[in-house]
Amino acid sequence: MTAAPQGYGTSALDFLFHPESIAIVGLSTDPSKAWLSDCYVTPMLQMGYPGSLYVVNPKGGHIDGVSVYPSVKDIPGTIDYVISLVPAQHTPRLLEECAAKGVRAVQFYTAGFSETGEPDDVQLQERLVSVARRLGMRLLGPNCMGLYCPESRLGFCPDFPSETGSIGLLCQSGGNTGYIVRSAAARGLRFSKVISYGNACDINECELLEYLANDDATRVITAYIEGTTDGRQLLRSLSMAARRKPVIVLKGGETESGRRAAATHTGSLAGVDAVWDSLLKQAGALRVDSVEEMADVLVAMLQMRRPRGLNTCVIGIGGGSNVLATDDCEHAGLRLAPFPPHIAERVSAVLPPAGSMRRNPLDAFSLVGFPQGWQQLVDILHDWEGLDLVLFHYAFGGPPLPPHYERIAPALGPMTSAAKNVRLPMAVVLHSTPNNDSWQASLTVQRMCLEAGLPFFVSVSGAALAIRKVVEFGLANPGLLDRLLAEA
Amino acid sequence: MTAAPQGYGTSALDFLFHPESIAIVGLSTDPSKAWLSDCYVTPMLQMGYPGSLYVVNPKGGHIDGVSVYPSVKDIPGTIDYVISLVPAQHTPRLLEECAAKGVRAVQFYTAGFSETGEPDDVQLQERLVSVARRLGMRLLGPNCMGLYCPESRLGFCPDFPSETGSIGLLCQSGGNTGYIVRSAAARGLRFSKVISYGNACDINECELLEYLANDDATRVITAYIEGTTDGRQLLRSLSMAARRKPVIVLKGGETESGRRAAATHTGSLAGVDAVWDSLLKQAGALRVDSVEEMADVLVAMLQMRRPRGLNTCVIGIGGGSNVLATDDCEHAGLRLAPFPPHIAERVSAVLPPAGSMRRNPLDAFSLVGFPQGWQQLVDILHDWEGLDLVLFHYAFGGPPLPPHYERIAPALGPMTSAAKNVRLPMAVVLHSTPNNDSWQASLTVQRMCLEAGLPFFVSVSGAALAIRKVVEFGLANPGLLDRLLAEA
Repeated sequence: MTAAPQGYGTSALDFLFHPESIAIVGLSTDPSKAWLSDCYVTPMLQMGYPGSLYVVNPKGGHIDGVSVYPSVKDIPGTIDYVISLVPAQHTPRLLEECAAKGVRAVQFYTAGFSETGEPDDVQLQERLVSVARRLGMRLLGPNCMGLYCPESRLGFCPDFPSETGSIGLLCQSGGNTGYIVRSAAARGLRFSKVISYGNACDINECELLEYLANDDATRVITAYIEGTTDGRQLLRSLSMAARRKPVIVLKGGETESGRRAAATHTGSLAGVDAVWDSLLKQAGALRVDSVEEMADVLVAMLQMRRPRGLNTCVIGIGGGSNVLATDDCEHAGLRLAPFPPHIAERVSAVLPPAGSMRRNPLDAFSLVGFPQGWQQLVDILHDWEGLDLVLFHYAFGGPPLPPHYERIAPALGPMTSAAKNVRLPMAVVLHSTPNNDSWQASLTVQRMCLEAGLPFFVSVSGAALAIRKVVEFGLANPGLLDRLLAEA
Repeated sequence: MTAAPQGYGTSALDFLFHPESIAIVGLSTDPSKAWLSDCYVTPMLQMGYPGSLYVVNPKGGHIDGVSVYPSVKDIPGTIDYVISLVPAQHTPRLLEECAAKGVRAVQFYTAGFSETGEPDDVQLQERLVSVARRLGMRLLGPNCMGLYCPESRLGFCPDFPSETGSIGLLCQSGGNTGYIVRSAAARGLRFSKVISYGNACDINECELLEYLANDDATRVITAYIEGTTDGRQLLRSLSMAARRKPVIVLKGGETESGRRAAATHTGSLAGVDAVWDSLLKQAGALRVDSVEEMADVLVAMLQMRRPRGLNTCVIGIGGGSNVLATDDCEHAGLRLAPFPPHIAERVSAVLPPAGSMRRNPLDAFSLVGFPQGWQQLVDILHDWEGLDLVLFHYAFGGPPLPPHYERIAPALGPMTSAAKNVRLPMAVVLHSTPNNDSWQASLTVQRMCLEAGLPFFVSVSGAALAIRKVVEFGLANPGLLDRLLAEA
């Protein structure tokens, strides 16, 4: 193979995110494959991609109102970026056609390369890379979904937010890209640039990390990585990125069978977990163990004021849910100190003894419907020296009554209003939704939080773990998170 | 205090669940307190409680069409069971009035007793017990929601299922009772008898365990316990129950602050966790760490065939979700062996190399819409000797397209149909639902599973942990779970 093009790892990839013309090649006109145009044509049209958009299929015709050209060479003018859905065996020929049209990069949705483990397929992928290097073209994938960049109106999921944000995501799995973006979006988080990069035959995790580290629009980098072919380069790229911005990493294929899965998924050398753990630690990345945890860490990092320590006051509505929430918080490493005497005394003046658990956790059951009481409570907590964090929570599946949309807003409105007035670091946890009634009620309060700009979590253990990890990460990386907040 | 009434722990409590007349005393006519009649009157009316139902309030009038009597003594005839909502200070007088009407048991929703920690309140609870013992009356609570027994049409949550089942639940928290019953109900599980027992001043966890151990309608006992006043008796009662039936225990107040929370919630001596752990182990109970885990263990125990071991085949749709599912399974202790050669060969004849991960986990993406392929796959797995368990799963938030109700049923129908035909132990996991679209789609498939009688879980890690724990519990308690299945 020839060497990778120059400019590796700096802003060399910037052109990827600003193509003036895009051709989607091999998109089927068969109605059973219409979902592929929902992925690749619909988002561009919905978001209003301002460049020229072409579809290529030998049968011609129209797809979603876009003219279909029989081949790449039939398209008038030049093309910057190609999305390939052609079968694997036709991809080298496609590259030759693309070169003739001035294409600078090709993304392959096309699968059936090194991930199958079949020698022919591995060889085909190698050939593809050789051809691309000879022609001076960059390749994304194969076996990936490609790019989502709201600023440039690029995307591949019709329901991804059209607003831009500050999170850069590189994700080796197309499906997990969907799950990560949707999980974050549901929490009010938005992305600068998202790259689903699959088998990483050319553009790989190292180059993407370095690119995002240099990208001004990206303030936090998060990554789902199944494997690498160059651990040393990954350590260098990751370390460089982690010195500039917080980098969060979910390693797919942690276990032995998980590694086998990763190998058949993206042809990755997943590597022994202890090696990865040490690599991520050495580089200064924050490791997470699930997509849910990734979303929680992003919320704690981007939406919450940073607690100086782990001393937490837990305020819920209901006794049993407070007991379990307290266990969850302490298991995750938060600390719940009893109220100091002067605080206990003032809390006792606001809350009656029956049904209040006035010691931390606090059961604010008696304050439902009493906004003044909530505000008094917040005022008291402001005078608790040494308190680092206030955690409000509500278990939607717990109360004797089934939650109703019209009843939940007035019941929890005073809680979220009080949360808004907390001057300490603060989080809301909306949890325990085993059925549709409880989920819909929690969704109502999620929307209240989103509108009020309140950071919320969907499980107490998830919130507590993420907050503890971000506090520790902040202490281990002085300045890194403060910079983030200063920029916010 | 005088001794507890005779017959302790056998069927002495049976009368509690079959009252011929009930009086709800202290129910407010104030519209802002209408929710309390939604709790205590509505469920009885909805389920068709066949006995006499009375409401008592000095103001008289009607509540939900039920005549309100000014006092207990104004009710014509005798009363078996009283639900008290009167303020704490009036409860001793209430007991005297009840005695005159032949009341055998009183349940106290009323709170403000030992759980507040105030000496006066602690004393009031002791006085209440003394009075009750003198009068030959049993007390449930105080500070509890009371009884739910669908067979007898008793209940306190208007949305609890009216169908009866085989799970007996004792729960020290009213809110957690709601969360446990709803979590289990959403999974198709039903209850024989549920007791929210609060401060346990008279009827306590020991007596309830022994009662449920002797109750023919109860096949599995599950408990949420915050503390006990008699660890030795609890060990005896728990051991006796666990010899007869599986007993699942969630201990609330595991951590230091959790114990403080439990003390202020139900006045419980929560005790050091290591002591509890040893007590639960010695008694032969299966310990769980959350309500979610309790529901998962109940599904694994009551709805799944028992795997002989932990060798699992994981089948999903999508690559990245399979990698993460595999990690979750192995972290929880399940094992994913690669396909043996003769199985691998036959799988390769059904699934194309691209996008299939044909090694375990299996990515059945190419089988979406091909029912015959799913059935062929199941037939092949039946010939895999040494395979203990098949786990189908789907990540609703992952696919490039947002899930749609009308599209998800045909897409996943062939998977659930194939799941029905698996003759090995089998579970379905419907997971990763970060937003309402993905939740609604998963709800559609949950309903398909409920209708088809398929055991389903809502997270891969939850499913894997519960299955592993139940397999180990079955091996440690030979016969106990087999009996359960034989009775099913």
